[in-house]
Amino acid sequence: MQLCHQPVWSSRALLMMRAAWIVLSLAGCVAPHNCVAPAQPTASNPAATLPSWRDTSAKQAIESFVADVTREGSSSFVPPAERIAVFDNDGTLWSEQPLYFQFVFMLDQVKAAAPQHPEWKDNPAFKALIAKDYGALANQQKALQQLVAVANSGMTVDDYDKTISAWLASARHPKFGRLYTDLVYQPQLELLAYLRANGFKTFIVSGGTIEFMRVWAEKAYGIPPEQVVGSSQVVQYEVRNGKPVLVREPKLDFVDDGAGKPVGIYRNIGHKPIFAFGNSDGDLQMLQYTAAGPGRHLALLLHHDDAVREFAYDRASKVGKLDKAWDEAVTEGWTVVSMKNDWQTVFPAPRQ
Amino acid sequence: MQLCHQPVWSSRALLMMRAAWIVLSLAGCVAPHNCVAPAQPTASNPAATLPSWRDTSAKQAIESFVADVTREGSSSFVPPAERIAVFDNDGTLWSEQPLYFQFVFMLDQVKAAAPQHPEWKDNPAFKALIAKDYGALANQQKALQQLVAVANSGMTVDDYDKTISAWLASARHPKFGRLYTDLVYQPQLELLAYLRANGFKTFIVSGGTIEFMRVWAEKAYGIPPEQVVGSSQVVQYEVRNGKPVLVREPKLDFVDDGAGKPVGIYRNIGHKPIFAFGNSDGDLQMLQYTAAGPGRHLALLLHHDDAVREFAYDRASKVGKLDKAWDEAVTEGWTVVSMKNDWQTVFPAPRQ
Repeated sequence: MQLCHQPVWSSRALLMMRAAWIVLSLAGCVAPHNCVAPAQPTASNPAATLPSWRDTSAKQAIESFVADVTREGSSSFVPPAERIAVFDNDGTLWSEQPLYFQFVFMLDQVKAAAPQHPEWKDNPAFKALIAKDYGALANQQKALQQLVAVANSGMTVDDYDKTISAWLASARHPKFGRLYTDLVYQPQLELLAYLRANGFKTFIVSGGTIEFMRVWAEKAYGIPPEQVVGSSQVVQYEVRNGKPVLVREPKLDFVDDGAGKPVGIYRNIGHKPIFAFGNSDGDLQMLQYTAAGPGRHLALLLHHDDAVREFAYDRASKVGKLDKAWDEAVTEGWTVVSMKNDWQTVFPAPRQ
Repeated sequence: MQLCHQPVWSSRALLMMRAAWIVLSLAGCVAPHNCVAPAQPTASNPAATLPSWRDTSAKQAIESFVADVTREGSSSFVPPAERIAVFDNDGTLWSEQPLYFQFVFMLDQVKAAAPQHPEWKDNPAFKALIAKDYGALANQQKALQQLVAVANSGMTVDDYDKTISAWLASARHPKFGRLYTDLVYQPQLELLAYLRANGFKTFIVSGGTIEFMRVWAEKAYGIPPEQVVGSSQVVQYEVRNGKPVLVREPKLDFVDDGAGKPVGIYRNIGHKPIFAFGNSDGDLQMLQYTAAGPGRHLALLLHHDDAVREFAYDRASKVGKLDKAWDEAVTEGWTVVSMKNDWQTVFPAPRQ
């Protein structure tokens, strides 16, 4: 008996493909704007405090939770080995608008690969992409998916890592004009450090792929590669010219999104988290799973309501849709963090 | 387009099934023997020394390697974040004879599930298992695999963990009469602690399944669940009676053996190891991958040549076959550790 897994590059399954919907509505929102200068952190020891968090109920909920689980001898005490904190990445630790940054990278890879693929010149998806005809592109999803699969596969994982790093070192965000890796959220950097200073292990659990996050997550977030849980592509071990390599196949292996997130947590972490932070319906099951733990736990959602400093979106949005998880947050008493009201700062100060 | 993954429970793919071959030759080697009392460790600080290792070239190779990669300012220095050490489990960190211990557990689960499956009474594999007719059982592999799949699936991961823990707390090894978790190798416990004391992160990378190792690996080896890489079964997220659970499906998801080991390392660790320890052909690619790193590295094989204190096997063996990896160790100058000659002690002293 043979059973089939997910169809390869199925539109439901692929987070990068999920983003393709957005191409439809891209035209109006990619014009460059000036960078909004964030406020400076006010404390000299970000590991121990949360200077970019305003003194609101959200910050109080975090501090109260951490105090409870670290108070030895109390009924709410959790030993360090079980202090597992999981964070979504896109829209929770860094921006995700107007397109998931990974999807921008993958489209750029299609453009970069074009000289090696003269046969693409008559491909309707490729023509639409080059012409920035997003209406036509939206009608060519399957063809676009195939281009993305070809352009982002076939190479070794080491070569792909170098490609990602080179792109991150030069590509700039259309609204803020900054490197994408500068668009991490300053309050979350402080929160990660604060949790670690209190004995937590911090993990990313993201719909993005592991290789796209790992090349910069340790430097940006202090999260090492083995604590980055994400979607993954099939890779195959080969010995090429006497040298062992891992080669990327054009098939998705695991989608770490929605109901996949608790599965990713089980497979890669093996402990139930006691702290989970997300921002969209893709995080619903991760938050449910965390909130169902037997002891003290904290489930948080970041609400994107700050059109001035970032973007105002999420309810009924195409990227970062926050409907079901919002409703459950209200019902279950999860903590909703308002970017506008609860954060003093959004992004780190630009480097001099 | 839909592509099929590995056939479910295919005999090639399943490590637990691979072990089924051994059933053929079981009859003669399961009679209980007295436990061979191991020598006591001779040092009071096992984290900093290797008291159960004799002063031979194997121990010198380890100590020399660790000195080289931790010497700041030297060309061989490796920063702590990249000091990744990977260990196979079965036959490398604990015994694996006469049957992979996990396979013994899974067969016991078939027996335990029998009262809920009256339809099994005429199943030829079940009849052979109960009658200990290993000749007949060897001809019923497919039927046996189906029984194992049914008996070890359908429950939540939490319930399965409890089942594993209960089995490990009572089942005893046929030769040594000890709990299976007592049959870890004392020199390897010291080596794990020694590496960690020198800034290494230690990982298991095993063909065994993650859940079977995680319930005891942290206590036994000091390796937390998130540092246990292994084979895994498909699990599905469900909300049952309002409670989120993960349910085990009767399908294997990933086989962390052979060429799968570098893939497991890539997916779960994200760094190339600089230290790898195995004992069989299933570790060949993990050792190749480690040995292909650009800097200083150490690849080791444990040679099972001690019939008195453990078992003498591995060349052309069915469990723990060591042919290709042995040949490559000779060619490439990997370190072969003789259990008989290089280890002062094999197992920890029995608990009083």
